[in-house]
Amino acid sequence: MIKNRISPNSSGNTVGFGNQSGKQTGRLLNKDGSFNVRIVGVPFYKRFSFYHYITNTSWLVFLLLITAGFLVINVLFGLIFEFIGGYHFNGIEQKGSMNTFLELFFFSIQTFTSVGYGRVNPADLLGNIFSSIDSFVGLLYFALVTGLVYGRFSKPRSKLLFSQNAVFSPFKTQTALMFRVANKLSSSLVNAKVICTLSMTQQNADQKPVRTFNTLKIDIDTIAFFPTSWTVVHLIDGQSPLFGMTQMEFNAAQPELFVLLKFYDESFSQETFSTNSYTSGEFLWQSQFKPMLSFEGNGTVMNLGDLDVVNQID
Amino acid sequence: MIKNRISPNSSGNTVGFGNQSGKQTGRLLNKDGSFNVRIVGVPFYKRFSFYHYITNTSWLVFLLLITAGFLVINVLFGLIFEFIGGYHFNGIEQKGSMNTFLELFFFSIQTFTSVGYGRVNPADLLGNIFSSIDSFVGLLYFALVTGLVYGRFSKPRSKLLFSQNAVFSPFKTQTALMFRVANKLSSSLVNAKVICTLSMTQQNADQKPVRTFNTLKIDIDTIAFFPTSWTVVHLIDGQSPLFGMTQMEFNAAQPELFVLLKFYDESFSQETFSTNSYTSGEFLWQSQFKPMLSFEGNGTVMNLGDLDVVNQID
Amino acid sequence: MIKNRISPNSSGNTVGFGNQSGKQTGRLLNKDGSFNVRIVGVPFYKRFSFYHYITNTSWLVFLLLITAGFLVINVLFGLIFEFIGGYHFNGIEQKGSMNTFLELFFFSIQTFTSVGYGRVNPADLLGNIFSSIDSFVGLLYFALVTGLVYGRFSKPRSKLLFSQNAVFSPFKTQTALMFRVANKLSSSLVNAKVICTLSMTQQNADQKPVRTFNTLKIDIDTIAFFPTSWTVVHLIDGQSPLFGMTQMEFNAAQPELFVLLKFYDESFSQETFSTNSYTSGEFLWQSQFKPMLSFEGNGTVMNLGDLDVVNQID
Amino acid sequence: MIKNRISPNSSGNTVGFGNQSGKQTGRLLNKDGSFNVRIVGVPFYKRFSFYHYITNTSWLVFLLLITAGFLVINVLFGLIFEFIGGYHFNGIEQKGSMNTFLELFFFSIQTFTSVGYGRVNPADLLGNIFSSIDSFVGLLYFALVTGLVYGRFSKPRSKLLFSQNAVFSPFKTQTALMFRVANKLSSSLVNAKVICTLSMTQQNADQKPVRTFNTLKIDIDTIAFFPTSWTVVHLIDGQSPLFGMTQMEFNAAQPELFVLLKFYDESFSQETFSTNSYTSGEFLWQSQFKPMLSFEGNGTVMNLGDLDVVNQID
Repeated sequence: MIKNRISPNSSGNTVGFGNQSGKQTGRLLNKDGSFNVRIVGVPFYKRFSFYHYITNTSWLVFLLLITAGFLVINVLFGLIFEFIGGYHFNGIEQKGSMNTFLELFFFSIQTFTSVGYGRVNPADLLGNIFSSIDSFVGLLYFALVTGLVYGRFSKPRSKLLFSQNAVFSPFKTQTALMFRVANKLSSSLVNAKVICTLSMTQQNADQKPVRTFNTLKIDIDTIAFFPTSWTVVHLIDGQSPLFGMTQMEFNAAQPELFVLLKFYDESFSQETFSTNSYTSGEFLWQSQFKPMLSFEGNGTVMNLGDLDVVNQID
Repeated sequence: MIKNRISPNSSGNTVGFGNQSGKQTGRLLNKDGSFNVRIVGVPFYKRFSFYHYITNTSWLVFLLLITAGFLVINVLFGLIFEFIGGYHFNGIEQKGSMNTFLELFFFSIQTFTSVGYGRVNPADLLGNIFSSIDSFVGLLYFALVTGLVYGRFSKPRSKLLFSQNAVFSPFKTQTALMFRVANKLSSSLVNAKVICTLSMTQQNADQKPVRTFNTLKIDIDTIAFFPTSWTVVHLIDGQSPLFGMTQMEFNAAQPELFVLLKFYDESFSQETFSTNSYTSGEFLWQSQFKPMLSFEGNGTVMNLGDLDVVNQID
Repeated sequence: MIKNRISPNSSGNTVGFGNQSGKQTGRLLNKDGSFNVRIVGVPFYKRFSFYHYITNTSWLVFLLLITAGFLVINVLFGLIFEFIGGYHFNGIEQKGSMNTFLELFFFSIQTFTSVGYGRVNPADLLGNIFSSIDSFVGLLYFALVTGLVYGRFSKPRSKLLFSQNAVFSPFKTQTALMFRVANKLSSSLVNAKVICTLSMTQQNADQKPVRTFNTLKIDIDTIAFFPTSWTVVHLIDGQSPLFGMTQMEFNAAQPELFVLLKFYDESFSQETFSTNSYTSGEFLWQSQFKPMLSFEGNGTVMNLGDLDVVNQID
Repeated sequence: MIKNRISPNSSGNTVGFGNQSGKQTGRLLNKDGSFNVRIVGVPFYKRFSFYHYITNTSWLVFLLLITAGFLVINVLFGLIFEFIGGYHFNGIEQKGSMNTFLELFFFSIQTFTSVGYGRVNPADLLGNIFSSIDSFVGLLYFALVTGLVYGRFSKPRSKLLFSQNAVFSPFKTQTALMFRVANKLSSSLVNAKVICTLSMTQQNADQKPVRTFNTLKIDIDTIAFFPTSWTVVHLIDGQSPLFGMTQMEFNAAQPELFVLLKFYDESFSQETFSTNSYTSGEFLWQSQFKPMLSFEGNGTVMNLGDLDVVNQID
């Protein structure tokens, strides 16, 4: 039995996302696909990307932000219009509880959105200059919003569901580490390829703990079509960094299995990646996935509700 | 003669889109490129992707949906305007068969589309608040529609036509399995690569039927330019999973030949995939494709009408 | 000397874009990157792709088409408005040479573009219904135009210039076939790879002429950065299909050299292809390209005017 | 010791971006990713790409350009309107300092932006014809601006920071050339691959100086996930073109290390490239990077302020 063997293709301690000590705590890849990393040492504004934020935030936050931008700009123009004087505009009636500012604020909105009813309209040079600027800014604003809405919509969202657990199952005459991925829309995903990296804390030649990263050999790592579910299988043979490890040794090594799944999504006409990771509590031993596919009438049926169902083996 | 031989690179029963029993019924890949799969076990709303649906539906359904959305929103605003009271608006004339609701409904449309004729216009605070919201929602709606229209238009549609049948033809001194693909627009397709996977029900070592998936070796699987038609050829030599199979054995194996064809489309400046599959009734034996290309004057002529024409060989 | 040798990696007569007879006439790839192929056998409308046409036509034709569409739709709405009767609209003044149809035609344009001055405006139910439809159609039309304008602008146009001729030059102790490509904007092109295919009419084992396609081995076929010019070199050694051919034999073979150049364009953030081909009259023997690069002060200078300059060798 | 050895995979003097003399001056790749190349020999307009310029310029220049375009077009329409005569329009009031041209200029803006208040409106045929053209041009202009704004926003900007210096550090029992790259947003970058090319002036077999380009072998040149920082390591073993060179020899060779880093950016759903180069003054000898990562609580912390910190080794 080879214990804590560091396989030859392990990355050393100064490359990739390795570290010097092996004392990593917590997972590196969160379940939502983001990295569990905090950045310090440079001011926030240097690290902030507006487009990155606005295309990744929720639709609610997105709507609140563009509504806030809309209101702020129009309040500003309302104030400018009042500052230069309401007499530069025709048609201010001040019905009901309306005062000059409110009339001008709503006039700004009518200009900004290019509705332009025309009851209120610019009467002279100053009024025309500022309402022209208002309408130009408005069109740029909605050009921006149109682009952002499209950018958000056209961003491929993950159509893949990963099984909650990775399991150690009997496979042929040996043991294999497996997890399952399902195409939850049964959409046209093709040309899929999976890359699995296992990170563990192991002892190097000097008996010092180091964090190793091994690419796991996958039985069949590429499929041309991905219509239903895919059971990704790593056979634990003599070449595997897991060969000869006991369950206890494995857990002690603080394992994290990184999964990178590349596929071409015909709906979006582009190559997409889906990521996941499994850490200590998410590995099951002596277990087996329940089959998800059945055949009824003239087609295949996939029971997505069974994706996470695992049977214990005696 | 090697019967129902399961080649070493067959995927086992737990990986890819394999299944446990080999009792698959019906084709897996429909002729329109979608998968013949039904998903159960999770509620519909968890499996539904609005963008996926809206970019893949027909133009008619798309137009009906955005028209319906347009009408629903404006009826809603018409009702709100009537609820707060028509006296918040100037210019309501109620000519002909118009009543207050209809005036306000059309006023909403004029606001939503930012036409804003101005005959009807908001007179006071409440009228202004709700018509401002109306115009903002309208601009967002058309931002969305603009994005969706572009998303639909820029989605590469297949320019490839596959021959109706795959044929077993004499090739050099042996037999080959062939099908044909044509670039129906003669548009600028380059860097094409084909991947063929043959799925059959075969008996494993324990005499149990399993569904196998073999990647077929293609004579020339990559072409730099794809101006006309391409005859994809799998030579049935000793390495082929089809070697030694009779027509009857082949049909009994419920074969499905999956074709994945990747190419770069210069019109859309992106890599695209085209898919097809051939099942039992679509394979012809002892046949040959009629040539489609001829040379007239100073150029090449492709007769697309001959794409499916097959000659029987005696 | 090996005459008209058909190298082992030649594609046979039924694959790729080969043909049965070798009697090809004219070039296959035009200098503008389109294919010199005529398609017959299916009706035009089945082969026509609107998006393909509209994004590849000239800006002039594009403008004419969208202007024509704009006029046709508005004439149609003008006719509809006149058909239902001008009395459904307020504000028709018929000043100068204006008649009811012209007033309604321009009212339609004001509605379609969402300008909506409001002098003319719908007075009752019928007028409102049709002008609402007009404004909705208008917004969809400009959503479409916005998408098409963006689609045309964002399409990567070729930034590469190919030398007019391919030359046979002395190279080390042998001869090489070379051509030159220049990055005419010196824009940020990276990760370039070239694939060259030589098509010739040669005699097969049965002394029948066939059209062969050989991929030429390129000395260095991949470059990480492409800042200036790149001389693509095919060394004519024993492995080359050109080995031992005389100039006369080469010309008799009706050669066409297809060039496919893939690169990543950082301005457009996408992978792009550039294509070219050289036919009989475009090959020069015993010649050499004049160097294009010089070094002045603190940088490199590329003289694009020298791209096609070739010196004869005695 | 092998001095100035030209490794077998060096590109010769007529390929890639090589040159005939080896007398290159200045760097080829600027720190901002552009090439230090001047193009002569063809007129400017043949080398200029509007889309390339407009998507790569700063936001300030972009805004100035589209504002200038907006003003120029509307001044033009104002002049046309005045030329045909102000009497073709209703509602010109000339309040305050407004004259006919100003009224018509602002009327043009109201038409161009489709605001259309309606106080000023076209009264007859000529007025309607030109204001219709104005509104059509306006919508095309904003279609263009919408596309350009989206094109600029969706262009992936570099999220990578390269260390200021490349260092020669002890590595295992040998020396390695290293530099560091950090993911400054800790955004979802995956599937990263680095290609390093070292350019030096060396003497060829005839003792003539030539510029050589060697692809450096990188210890681990591909990483599946790129959450924090990556130390790229080239080990100087017998295969390295740097093997046996002294610091003085290295500096005399006017070295430039080109770095091309490819990765997939999940925020933009596309493959992106980041480039950098190191020249003479930017290489440090006998130095080592200070570690940037630490582990606190339940996660990883990256100190970006330490990216450039290098410790001298005694």
